[in-house]
Amino acid sequence: MIDLSKFITIDKPSTQPVYLQIVNHIISLIKSGVLLPGVKIQPSRDLSKMLNVHRNTVVASYNELHAQGWITVRARKGCFISPTLPDLNPVLLKPDQEKRASYPGHTSFAIDYKLKNELLQQYPSGVSKYVFNEGFPDVRLTPLKELLREYQVIGNRKSARKHLSYSTKEGSLRLREELVKMLRQSRGLNIETDNILITKGAQMAIYLTASLLLKPGDHVIVGEPSYFIVNAMLDRLGARICRVPVDEHGIDVDAVARLCESTPIRMIYVIPHHHHPTTVTLSADRRLKLLDIAAQYKIAVIEDDFDFDIHYENRPTLPMASSDQHGSVIYIGTLTKIFAPTIRLGYVVAPQNFIRLIGQHRVMVDLQGDNLLEEAMAELFVNGAIERHLKKIRSLYKERRDLLCKMLSEQLPGIANFTIPQGGLCLWVTFKGVDTKAISKEALRNGLFIRDGKNHNPPDKDLNAMCIGFASMNPEELREAGQILIDAVLSCMDKG
Amino acid sequence: MIDLSKFITIDKPSTQPVYLQIVNHIISLIKSGVLLPGVKIQPSRDLSKMLNVHRNTVVASYNELHAQGWITVRARKGCFISPTLPDLNPVLLKPDQEKRASYPGHTSFAIDYKLKNELLQQYPSGVSKYVFNEGFPDVRLTPLKELLREYQVIGNRKSARKHLSYSTKEGSLRLREELVKMLRQSRGLNIETDNILITKGAQMAIYLTASLLLKPGDHVIVGEPSYFIVNAMLDRLGARICRVPVDEHGIDVDAVARLCESTPIRMIYVIPHHHHPTTVTLSADRRLKLLDIAAQYKIAVIEDDFDFDIHYENRPTLPMASSDQHGSVIYIGTLTKIFAPTIRLGYVVAPQNFIRLIGQHRVMVDLQGDNLLEEAMAELFVNGAIERHLKKIRSLYKERRDLLCKMLSEQLPGIANFTIPQGGLCLWVTFKGVDTKAISKEALRNGLFIRDGKNHNPPDKDLNAMCIGFASMNPEELREAGQILIDAVLSCMDKG
Repeated sequence: MIDLSKFITIDKPSTQPVYLQIVNHIISLIKSGVLLPGVKIQPSRDLSKMLNVHRNTVVASYNELHAQGWITVRARKGCFISPTLPDLNPVLLKPDQEKRASYPGHTSFAIDYKLKNELLQQYPSGVSKYVFNEGFPDVRLTPLKELLREYQVIGNRKSARKHLSYSTKEGSLRLREELVKMLRQSRGLNIETDNILITKGAQMAIYLTASLLLKPGDHVIVGEPSYFIVNAMLDRLGARICRVPVDEHGIDVDAVARLCESTPIRMIYVIPHHHHPTTVTLSADRRLKLLDIAAQYKIAVIEDDFDFDIHYENRPTLPMASSDQHGSVIYIGTLTKIFAPTIRLGYVVAPQNFIRLIGQHRVMVDLQGDNLLEEAMAELFVNGAIERHLKKIRSLYKERRDLLCKMLSEQLPGIANFTIPQGGLCLWVTFKGVDTKAISKEALRNGLFIRDGKNHNPPDKDLNAMCIGFASMNPEELREAGQILIDAVLSCMDKG
Repeated sequence: MIDLSKFITIDKPSTQPVYLQIVNHIISLIKSGVLLPGVKIQPSRDLSKMLNVHRNTVVASYNELHAQGWITVRARKGCFISPTLPDLNPVLLKPDQEKRASYPGHTSFAIDYKLKNELLQQYPSGVSKYVFNEGFPDVRLTPLKELLREYQVIGNRKSARKHLSYSTKEGSLRLREELVKMLRQSRGLNIETDNILITKGAQMAIYLTASLLLKPGDHVIVGEPSYFIVNAMLDRLGARICRVPVDEHGIDVDAVARLCESTPIRMIYVIPHHHHPTTVTLSADRRLKLLDIAAQYKIAVIEDDFDFDIHYENRPTLPMASSDQHGSVIYIGTLTKIFAPTIRLGYVVAPQNFIRLIGQHRVMVDLQGDNLLEEAMAELFVNGAIERHLKKIRSLYKERRDLLCKMLSEQLPGIANFTIPQGGLCLWVTFKGVDTKAISKEALRNGLFIRDGKNHNPPDKDLNAMCIGFASMNPEELREAGQILIDAVLSCMDKG
């Protein structure tokens, strides 16, 4: 009989219960071949003395091992490692298979899809002291503890289990109810719960809408520049992309009207609140005109309103969807920008017939959402945690916006040109007399990673601008990182 | 000055801190117009006495209200409701907008997508005492507490925040490492972490693969019958579906070979372990032959292995992917079937070049996964909770399978025909002499909801079979529900 106690060490401060530690130790002894099938092991009484733990603990371990089939108990003979261990010997299809060196590196079939520029939302870590992203929230402010508390509360309820099985494709009714309340109050959307479908972030909401509506060859209008990941998606879906200039009042609606006269436009993608990446707000008269055009030509308008909640002026402009009398607008929002990127919750707001069809479409893409997360998030709306968080980040991000704007305008007048954004998480800065590629390179040498912004360039045009996210750094970090950027610009000017 | 204490009730046993209760009460008083802008409110000392709470509590409430911008403090004058309240008056695009009766019911643009039969995974609740689903796990067994504990552990770590921001499109490295270990050990897949991408359940894994590879008009082979949601998806993607018979050894591989000779097949979708819905296992010789065909014609094989982990015999057959020398197989698995449907975690295993491309493709669909959930799930692999859970459900589900099989074969010999499945969560039962539609109707009258199985019928063929999930009911429930089903069959036979 092998002395088990020699192989088992108990880690009392561990978060894992002692009985499970014993179970896991014994299983790994079996798997590694130390304990062979049929071998007798110590009675629980002996092992508990040897390990200096309560006997009931070892009894619990043995019960678990027995339930899992690792050990058998024979009356008056004791405990034995099970002679038949189910999982250890799966059937090999071919006897020589284990000799195979490695998994095939390439598919044998052709893939009609080329790897273009990487569409990254992630930034390198560890290569620089600071990173300017293109507009991420500060996840250090995320009310994570509040979210986890709601998980616990739901998990302890008797009704918890019903949130674990298949649920509706439109998402938790409770969260939809809370979103409807919030959208009615803040955005003037006169909607009911059958006007909304919860998705995995705004990205999936846009994808579902575009892939439901577009056939290869369909024409879509976007701003120039516009959100590069959506451009890549439209391209991937086979759409013909028609670019329309964006000025300080948003996209040029007269240019949209002219295009619609000559071309059968299927869809228009706009970001009226704060156009990405240039952060401008679409003016009220252009919004109304765009709605008229959409109704006249029966065009679908995707209104991407990813950062409505993050506004720094007192009176935010309501979305176009709130004035849509004809059912032209598919309104898209998200909680990831206010909460955390990993919390994949976005939504589509649209007339009922569209929501029903997009529901069927989403079943094929991923069946349904994470109901447990949706229920927990609903509680954060109910108890006011979301609203408190919003108030907090609006005030903090405003401070950060103002700090960065002040530094740039004081130290780089005429070189770094921008309009102060009324909301959102980033600044769109056009550089004069210095190339952003050089700035980016010089900044990295001094401990700051910042993209050169060329990813926002339309085909055959260099905007020479950077999208600088100010929200995810606190003032101290922002001052340091901002100074590295400014010094890099000045240093490039000298060299140039 | 309004007496605030008249409007505020403190609920001490609530999970919400008292200071937040006060905050929320005051905010709702402001919103409902009881507290108007500029109005003075009680000093914290007075209010704390009136409410009988500690003064620091009220101070905390006022600080929060101040931080959020609801109140202002004037030196030596006291606290006032803020004269400018940012969120209350959003700008209306048109003055007459609030008169609008309701949101448009229909889109003004055409949608080239018809609502066919509802593709439901959800079952009606409250209409019957029992529900036979088509093979769901028993979520009452889900180790939810263990998962929530891992959330807490991660949430309390200093490094927690890094899991909240944008992460890799392939999913958490830690979870991929654990999946790789598990897949190498249990499935003989000789893979590394760059061979795997984590998705939102197997559904998304299949969707990403199919939508990456297929162009409208491409030919795809599926079994007859096959998983109806995947059939609908292939149809939606514009594929031409070629159906091949399925017998007791799985799909007819000779028929596949003949098809490949005459038709340019792009993809084959198979479920070799337990074909859905008929639960048969693809024989070893057919697997090897199918791999040869795929390599010869350069066809992509989607191997949907959604229930590999749930097997009741000692030696499970390894997946085809483990014998694939040419990189033909895209292997798809899921944790939803063993854990819970709401835990949306699945994965794609494939050669590196395919994983790189599917990663780019998934960025457009939903950017990335829920990193927090992925990290928590990785811990459940590390501490053995997943393996313990698997052992447990295998033993319990086997018992349930045997019970249902015994009841049907004893009480409906020659009427209910089936092969005992070697694994999985359901039984495929073909009925003789009685229509499943009638059975379903009769069962509902006696408190049991069960689908008539017609959703599995290929076009123009009635299989007259039902897919009966046995896993989600305990033996007592299964006995009762099974008896209602059997009685319904017998009653229909009498009437027929």
